[in-house]
Amino acid sequence: MSLSFRTARREDVPVIVALLVDDPISASRDTAPGLDYDDAFAAIDADPRNELIVVESGGEIVGTMQLTFIPGLSRRGAERAQVEGVRVASTHRSQGIGGKMMEWAAGRARERGCTLLQLTSDKARTDAHRFYSSLGYEASHEGFKLRLN
Amino acid sequence: MSLSFRTARREDVPVIVALLVDDPISASRDTAPGLDYDDAFAAIDADPRNELIVVESGGEIVGTMQLTFIPGLSRRGAERAQVEGVRVASTHRSQGIGGKMMEWAAGRARERGCTLLQLTSDKARTDAHRFYSSLGYEASHEGFKLRLN
Repeated sequence: MSLSFRTARREDVPVIVALLVDDPISASRDTAPGLDYDDAFAAIDADPRNELIVVESGGEIVGTMQLTFIPGLSRRGAERAQVEGVRVASTHRSQGIGGKMMEWAAGRARERGCTLLQLTSDKARTDAHRFYSSLGYEASHEGFKLRLN
Repeated sequence: MSLSFRTARREDVPVIVALLVDDPISASRDTAPGLDYDDAFAAIDADPRNELIVVESGGEIVGTMQLTFIPGLSRRGAERAQVEGVRVASTHRSQGIGGKMMEWAAGRARERGCTLLQLTSDKARTDAHRFYSSLGYEASHEGFKLRLN
C-alpha cells in the first residue's frame, strides 16, 4: 500500500473531524461533525509550529495527526516535537499505517532539528501503548490533564 | 509571601537555565549554563502561543514555567494549554509557590479560552504526582517520549 502525506487543507476538515470522532474514547469529549471548525483550522494552518497532516491511500484520507513544535530552553535549546490526535480510519486499521505515520512524524521532527518526539495516550488505550513501545517510545512520564470550565 | 508573575526577558535566561539544571532528573539531559540560548529564547519570545514565565518574590526569581497554547480540531476547536519546565528554586520549595504557579497557569489558560490544561511529569517524580493530583489533575494518560538522534 502506497501512502502519501500532506498538510491538511480546509476542505479536508470534515473528514478529519469524522476520524477524530470515530473513537470510543474521544467521542464523548470531542468534536461534533456539525460544529464550525473554520477558526480552529485557520489557527493551525497559519501557525508555523503546528502541522495538521493527512495520510492518503488511493486518493482517500486514511489517517490524520497533528504535529506541534515547541521551542524551549530545556534540552539545550532544541525544539521538541509533539504528536496529538493520531487516528487511522477504522476501515484501514491493522495494515501498518500507524507505524508508517509515526515513522514519518519522526522524520519530520528530525528535519526540524528536534531531539525529542513526545505524545500522551489515554491509559485505556493499551493496544496503542504496546504499539508505541514497539517503536522505541519510552513510557517514562505520567500524563496529567485538568479540565477547565 | 507575595509573588508576581511576568513574561521572561532575555536577561532572565541565565537564571531560568540555572533553575532548569538544578534538578536531579533534568540535570543530565538539559542544558548547560554555558550554552548559547539566544536563538531558543528569541523563538519562544516571538511566538504568540508560547509564554516563558518567571515568578518573583522580593525582586528575586523563585520559579519558572513555560506555557504553550496548542490549537486543534479536537475538543470542539478549543486551544489546549500545556505546561513544561515547571521549577521552583531549591531555596524556596515547600512554601506553596508551586501551587500558586499552577493556579496562575490555569487562570491564564482560562483567559485564553482553553478547556484543558495538560502536562507530563517524569514517573520518578512521585512527590510532584501527589501535588498535581491534589490540584485536581487526573493522571489519565501515559506519557511517551522518543529520543531522536
